[in-house]
Amino acid sequence: MKNDIKIFSPATVANVACGFDVLGFCLDTIGDEMVIRKTDKKGIYITKIEGFDLPFETTLNVAGVSALAMYEALKPDCGFEIEIYKNIKPGSGIGSSAASAVGSVFGMNELLGRPYNKTELTQFAIKGEALASKCEHADNLAPAIFGGFTLVKSVSPLEILEIPSPKDLYATIIHPQIEIKTSEARAILPKEVPLQNAIKQWANFGSLIHGLHTSDYGLIQRSLHDVIVEPHRSKLIPHYEDVKKAVLQHGALGAGISGSGPAIFTLSKGLENAQNVKDAMESVYSKTGIVFEIHMTRINTEGIKVLEDRRLKTDNRKPTHTH
Amino acid sequence: MKNDIKIFSPATVANVACGFDVLGFCLDTIGDEMVIRKTDKKGIYITKIEGFDLPFETTLNVAGVSALAMYEALKPDCGFEIEIYKNIKPGSGIGSSAASAVGSVFGMNELLGRPYNKTELTQFAIKGEALASKCEHADNLAPAIFGGFTLVKSVSPLEILEIPSPKDLYATIIHPQIEIKTSEARAILPKEVPLQNAIKQWANFGSLIHGLHTSDYGLIQRSLHDVIVEPHRSKLIPHYEDVKKAVLQHGALGAGISGSGPAIFTLSKGLENAQNVKDAMESVYSKTGIVFEIHMTRINTEGIKVLEDRRLKTDNRKPTHTH
Repeated sequence: MKNDIKIFSPATVANVACGFDVLGFCLDTIGDEMVIRKTDKKGIYITKIEGFDLPFETTLNVAGVSALAMYEALKPDCGFEIEIYKNIKPGSGIGSSAASAVGSVFGMNELLGRPYNKTELTQFAIKGEALASKCEHADNLAPAIFGGFTLVKSVSPLEILEIPSPKDLYATIIHPQIEIKTSEARAILPKEVPLQNAIKQWANFGSLIHGLHTSDYGLIQRSLHDVIVEPHRSKLIPHYEDVKKAVLQHGALGAGISGSGPAIFTLSKGLENAQNVKDAMESVYSKTGIVFEIHMTRINTEGIKVLEDRRLKTDNRKPTHTH
Repeated sequence: MKNDIKIFSPATVANVACGFDVLGFCLDTIGDEMVIRKTDKKGIYITKIEGFDLPFETTLNVAGVSALAMYEALKPDCGFEIEIYKNIKPGSGIGSSAASAVGSVFGMNELLGRPYNKTELTQFAIKGEALASKCEHADNLAPAIFGGFTLVKSVSPLEILEIPSPKDLYATIIHPQIEIKTSEARAILPKEVPLQNAIKQWANFGSLIHGLHTSDYGLIQRSLHDVIVEPHRSKLIPHYEDVKKAVLQHGALGAGISGSGPAIFTLSKGLENAQNVKDAMESVYSKTGIVFEIHMTRINTEGIKVLEDRRLKTDNRKPTHTH
């Protein structure tokens, strides 16, 4: 008996400039696909992984760990199989582990008739994300689950705010195929920062939230600055300053490090600007000899979603929920 | 010939919790009155000061200095007399000098047919404010001129954002009649702050801006925290913790130091809560032997305004602008 759904779990950008550690947004054209299958046999099993070499052992796999957290909380009278079709390269800086972590719990929740709300799902996904990043945070999970822009006000207690997303906002993201060790990206952060810089950062962050609410692209542009973290972490990304300079010259509203890198995100008003920014990125990076990928996408305001609900075919009844 | 207007220049709260140095709001029931008179005789003259003992010498008076900045920029073919009826005690922490600084330039601008916009008026007022506070800042000036909540995104270039003000928001402010030296309030600030605290501060500040946009009083309450400055400056205000504890117990959404103190501001939802907060403040402070004043007011969304336009009576024509 087939009793499964296929889902799309999107890539995300966290650490959005002045919103370091709290603001993220959701991407549209890049993400993983996963199949979550309800089984009579109890337990959580990862039955297929394609795309990248990741562990099948449930307790060692991000999607498995988040699934277990939910499974142990709910104790349902069934089990689940998880198939992972991974498109987001681990370590890219666009929420690869977050996509895995939210995919399993979102899918299970759908199959079980949605016992949990989005914040509760995020709470379970945090456990999976922690396996990958060694700390509990939700800045990629929240945009993957809620879509659009999200502000993680606090992790404990978990509080996630949905910030409006102006409709003409596009993201262009370059992912240089190099590895940045998370430990190195963390170690490079200062423990203390000048008060004057911190004030600048929250002035910009408050202004960015206001700009997103009012669809004021000029203000978004003037607010997308990070005076605290970027000066340190950008050193870990080759040609960061060249890319940033080029994209700003070609109409980007702003640019910053996506997550802890190496990906660099930009935001633009309109598709044409986003395309120009893509060309500018290509022009800089094609000269470097470093392999890279570029993603260009509107902001995904929907978040994670069901692609195919195969319960229909076997159960001969309508699902109680469609996404 | 009478050719003058009488204006109301409101008191303001700056350094609103997590919005330290950038967020302020405007009060309704407390402010100065000023008369600004256009004269044939050139120059800026302060002709009357009531309420507090302040210098008549134009270059030594906050209202005079801001007036001179505008006068020298515009070089009008007339002069101005300024009468100041001061109600806001200097050094209270609710924008006494800001009220003086904006009053003169606002009044002159009205009499001259509004050659300047609100941001330009703030720019002139900064010069007056600098006389009192020894540095150029606009966190009290902006709410006095624009009304409501304002975010001073940057001082140079000057950019002021008008943040929506939920209609049921009330402020209750206690002003203990003690003096805090500005120099002391500044010296007590750390030069560097822990990155983790700075992140908390901008998470709260972004959330507060979101809460003001969405009239989410619960979120406003959960966001009105200052983990950076309050722990230091609150030591300068007697019984600060007692007042804060009491007002929060009696329904205040939050409390903080107004400006650099000694005034303590609170925000409440609705008049009844604001009244309970007032009672709680009184109850704490009446036991201390320290003389105090309490102001209870809705948020003033209009800002500085003309009370009386006496040009009508003498010119026998309608003013080209009314506020």
